[in-house]
Amino acid sequence: MKDYILYSWNIIPIAVFYALPVMQLVFSYQVMHNNTGNEDKCYYNFMCANSFGQLSAFNNVFSNTGYILLGILYLIIVRLKATYGNSSEDKKYFGLHYALGIALIMEGVLSGSYHVCPNRSNYQFDTSYMYIMVCLTTLKLFQNRHRDELASAHVTYIWLAVFAIIAVLGLVCGTLAFWIILVFVHIGASCILTCLYYNEGHWRRPDENTQNADEKVVIGQTILIVVVNLFNLSAAIAAAVVQPDDFETYLLGVLMINSGLYFLFYIIMKPVCGECYAVFSVLWFFVAIGLWIPAWIYFRQGLTRWETTPAISREGNKDCSWFDFYDDHDIWHFLSAGALFFTFLTLLTIDDNLDGEGADDIAKF
Amino acid sequence: MKDYILYSWNIIPIAVFYALPVMQLVFSYQVMHNNTGNEDKCYYNFMCANSFGQLSAFNNVFSNTGYILLGILYLIIVRLKATYGNSSEDKKYFGLHYALGIALIMEGVLSGSYHVCPNRSNYQFDTSYMYIMVCLTTLKLFQNRHRDELASAHVTYIWLAVFAIIAVLGLVCGTLAFWIILVFVHIGASCILTCLYYNEGHWRRPDENTQNADEKVVIGQTILIVVVNLFNLSAAIAAAVVQPDDFETYLLGVLMINSGLYFLFYIIMKPVCGECYAVFSVLWFFVAIGLWIPAWIYFRQGLTRWETTPAISREGNKDCSWFDFYDDHDIWHFLSAGALFFTFLTLLTIDDNLDGEGADDIAKF
Repeated sequence: MKDYILYSWNIIPIAVFYALPVMQLVFSYQVMHNNTGNEDKCYYNFMCANSFGQLSAFNNVFSNTGYILLGILYLIIVRLKATYGNSSEDKKYFGLHYALGIALIMEGVLSGSYHVCPNRSNYQFDTSYMYIMVCLTTLKLFQNRHRDELASAHVTYIWLAVFAIIAVLGLVCGTLAFWIILVFVHIGASCILTCLYYNEGHWRRPDENTQNADEKVVIGQTILIVVVNLFNLSAAIAAAVVQPDDFETYLLGVLMINSGLYFLFYIIMKPVCGECYAVFSVLWFFVAIGLWIPAWIYFRQGLTRWETTPAISREGNKDCSWFDFYDDHDIWHFLSAGALFFTFLTLLTIDDNLDGEGADDIAKF
Repeated sequence: MKDYILYSWNIIPIAVFYALPVMQLVFSYQVMHNNTGNEDKCYYNFMCANSFGQLSAFNNVFSNTGYILLGILYLIIVRLKATYGNSSEDKKYFGLHYALGIALIMEGVLSGSYHVCPNRSNYQFDTSYMYIMVCLTTLKLFQNRHRDELASAHVTYIWLAVFAIIAVLGLVCGTLAFWIILVFVHIGASCILTCLYYNEGHWRRPDENTQNADEKVVIGQTILIVVVNLFNLSAAIAAAVVQPDDFETYLLGVLMINSGLYFLFYIIMKPVCGECYAVFSVLWFFVAIGLWIPAWIYFRQGLTRWETTPAISREGNKDCSWFDFYDDHDIWHFLSAGALFFTFLTLLTIDDNLDGEGADDIAKF
């Protein structure tokens, strides 16, 4: 019997062992920036870089506290729901939710670290926990309908480690050969994962599931699988042709679109299978959307661009926007922290309308 | 029921997520060394620094392959023993052995990374997996006699993460206040761990164990606990007074002496409880000693000293010793890799004389 609570415990040493050298790395860049006077290694928004202590852009570091505080709040909420909620759900199934809360806290720590000295090579530290959060939300959606078919925590985290290696390889050796290999890896992964999904976590669909399958669900799953694989095929080939400079954001985009397609499928299948939407889930969803839209606008302000030269990046720098202290990117931090928090709340409450129903009675899709 | 095989799986993502930023950090130092011409950031043995590609001291990096190769060999041996060995032992009890093999491989990767640019702040990456190996060997000895009382993998790795944080804190803020707090932390940890050991992994000794306790074992355990606590008390106070510059080596020394005391107790208690020594275990032990002694001599050659200034460190530099390519520190790498390998083999075979005996028949100490 898999103990899914380990999703929450196992992420802790991974987080600590990752963050320690990252923080050391970025501080060594900061010290070098301060000591040498070379201002081209760190792509700050020099028109709103408020220094404090050794930090050149303290505002860009401090504004990440939103992730940390909301991550802690999310952990508290999950704990309360697990302890006092209506669901008869075994506490271990909250393991992924706890892991999401911890991942949100770590996003704050690592994004803050990135902003100590933002540049191409440090950007991966900002995105690594974004990958983890997207993957964990997708897995939680899967687990809602396939309780015990989800892989154990150590299996998932090993694959996330492999993903992290690929992310770094793309950064350091983004050659044509790498991109060609990546096409096959991407398409292969898409096929394998959709196959595992269709067969409910197995390599072959259990016979009783085939016999009892709801026709509408099978049609829906088939459409999902076709759309997801078409998307991944297109993305893999397009990326090999374009070879985007910002490999990390490309990877994140692929993950988010896959996750988004699955979420869309999920909220379509609920009424198809005769389920209502949980009221609070709908509320949190629209609050999340209401935060993601302005967050995205602020993110796209392009205050700094490490894909270009330091001089060109400086041309995009802008004055502070809030309180003569925070710039547009800080506002992105605040808004996206809230957006992530409410996205996780949406996930936490998405099946609240099913509280009290046995696991076997819940529609599987 | 705790699944101890997770000791082997959980260490993998921890290792990957740790190594990725570490390698990036040290390469950024190397690039800075190459581009700026500042030769004081990396404490090479300049009289035997054979460059290759971007690496200034390729020999000091390459000589770490011994750890990697012997780590792989140890994993193969453990796998063979688990599959074909005489023991009726459940495969999950080999989890710690697999973890040791992986840790040995990681020691090679991280020591190699350290030697890309050896200095005070990077030294922690060399020692971090040494801490893990010492802790895992101690835990394995404990598990040999208290099969199911050992903590689960995720608990151990979380505490190792806490230890890693302490190691970094000692590096970045080794103030008097830190040392004073460390005294209490050190002594407290010693008391708690020896208490947990005496009570066989519990906070209170199970009643049946108290009634059935062998008097000789109790006396032996009492002596061990007193000696260990006296040592830790003395070390903690002495360190707070001296405040050693090389905090990482101090921590490693403390861990190794504690582990060594427990190992000494273990090999004394075997004949006290009427057990023989396993022949191969004795053989591997003396081979290990035979490698540790010369390894230690080569380690103490002091070719570089990042505790001093770059100029003073250069005064200790020496010519290559082997094949006009490897220096004494490379020889330390080769010898210590072998010594660690045979130390682990000693641990793997230490109770081979008990093969076939049920877990309940094995003396508990």
